[in-house]
Amino acid sequence: MTEKPLILVTNDDGINAPGIRTLIKVMNTIGDVVVVAPDSPQSGMGHAITVDTTLYVNKIVIDDGPQTEYRCSGTPADCVKLAIRELLSRTPDLCVSGINHGSNSSINVVYSGTMSAAVEAGIEGIPAIGFSLLDYAWDANFEASKSFVESITKQVLKNKLPNGIVLNVNIPNISENEIKGVKVCRQARANWVEEFDKRINPMGKDYYWLTGKFVNLDGGEDTDEHALENGYVSIVPVQFDLTAYSFMKELNTWELK
Amino acid sequence: MTEKPLILVTNDDGINAPGIRTLIKVMNTIGDVVVVAPDSPQSGMGHAITVDTTLYVNKIVIDDGPQTEYRCSGTPADCVKLAIRELLSRTPDLCVSGINHGSNSSINVVYSGTMSAAVEAGIEGIPAIGFSLLDYAWDANFEASKSFVESITKQVLKNKLPNGIVLNVNIPNISENEIKGVKVCRQARANWVEEFDKRINPMGKDYYWLTGKFVNLDGGEDTDEHALENGYVSIVPVQFDLTAYSFMKELNTWELK
Repeated sequence: MTEKPLILVTNDDGINAPGIRTLIKVMNTIGDVVVVAPDSPQSGMGHAITVDTTLYVNKIVIDDGPQTEYRCSGTPADCVKLAIRELLSRTPDLCVSGINHGSNSSINVVYSGTMSAAVEAGIEGIPAIGFSLLDYAWDANFEASKSFVESITKQVLKNKLPNGIVLNVNIPNISENEIKGVKVCRQARANWVEEFDKRINPMGKDYYWLTGKFVNLDGGEDTDEHALENGYVSIVPVQFDLTAYSFMKELNTWELK
Repeated sequence: MTEKPLILVTNDDGINAPGIRTLIKVMNTIGDVVVVAPDSPQSGMGHAITVDTTLYVNKIVIDDGPQTEYRCSGTPADCVKLAIRELLSRTPDLCVSGINHGSNSSINVVYSGTMSAAVEAGIEGIPAIGFSLLDYAWDANFEASKSFVESITKQVLKNKLPNGIVLNVNIPNISENEIKGVKVCRQARANWVEEFDKRINPMGKDYYWLTGKFVNLDGGEDTDEHALENGYVSIVPVQFDLTAYSFMKELNTWELK
């Protein structure tokens, strides 16, 4: 590469989150960085886009790094769309999203704003990676993540990714020397067993908080959950062609008029 | 089946939308219907869930049908979670979502609140179908949809669906006798080329509206787009294991530490 790669950085925890600040620092050592990230936390937003309300974007300076930064009132997917269509001078060579505060392994991928940003970039043909650390705390320690984020990013820039595929990288919440390595995995079959916490508001009206427990239903040793539980960084290649090709033949035998 | 199937009905256009009112009428002829749907439009919400704010649910009566109805302040995925965990007396035999005002074919599946509700039910092991009519208008004509909704629903109740797969059904906006039949399809490769409409608000601040043009990049004759353009109802079986298995072997050759 004769010139530095142009790297778009975004997330779903908001532009001030320690996770994205760490990601920006690592990316500054690899390429020219433009940050377009939500101005407030967007966790659980899935692949939401803003169609019914207006979007605001402000160029801002948060620290003394060389990156250019914009905060946006929209969702992570909005940020990627705005970056590509309006804010960047050329198509970026890479989009990285995160580092998310909390896991996006297994079924969490479908709820994840972090991964939806990566998928949105992938739809546009841009190699993309979502990074997540298995610690939901705002003051999570991202030190051990740095070297893995750097090496995986460099591998993507070197090898590229096939059209239609992005990477979902999850990092266990242990110290760097405890991490055993990196494993390519499939998404574990899992779900959330919700427990709605029913309360009564000061005006006497019932309301609910969504809470829940993550349940891994998958005994396989080739899953992201298994890798993470055993001290590995997990990489799941994620596609956004959702067609269940395996079922098409049987579906064609149905009596569909 | 000795007793009538229990059918959960939801959508993303809101509980008062003509599309869901049509869906409820058809389902009342097939089973016992419980409606749990958003109290306001949630289009473009993707697979968003409500984690940071409270959820309100109200039992309501909208028309004189036999169904039980609840309106909910949350997203389509929230509605399904609340229905299964809190509101229904037993696990439903089927979840249907829609009829959406507007297409959820090809890449729209990742942005679709309608389909996220179906996927959420699928994650819970419940057979699920998302229905969409290719007309964004509030006063869209759902007459031609009815018989297809009925026959596909009955086929799902009869044949069941494999674990991990839900159906994405799109219906062309033409009269019933113009519809040529039903085709099992794969998701077309397509994207939206956004055009952000930049404006200045009364206080002098820039803002954007997200607009865009749908672009079908896929010349295949086995896609949902091709079927719809040629007057067929499209059915895409949709999976929520997003693992790109085809890329795992190559990814394992990368220099990942």
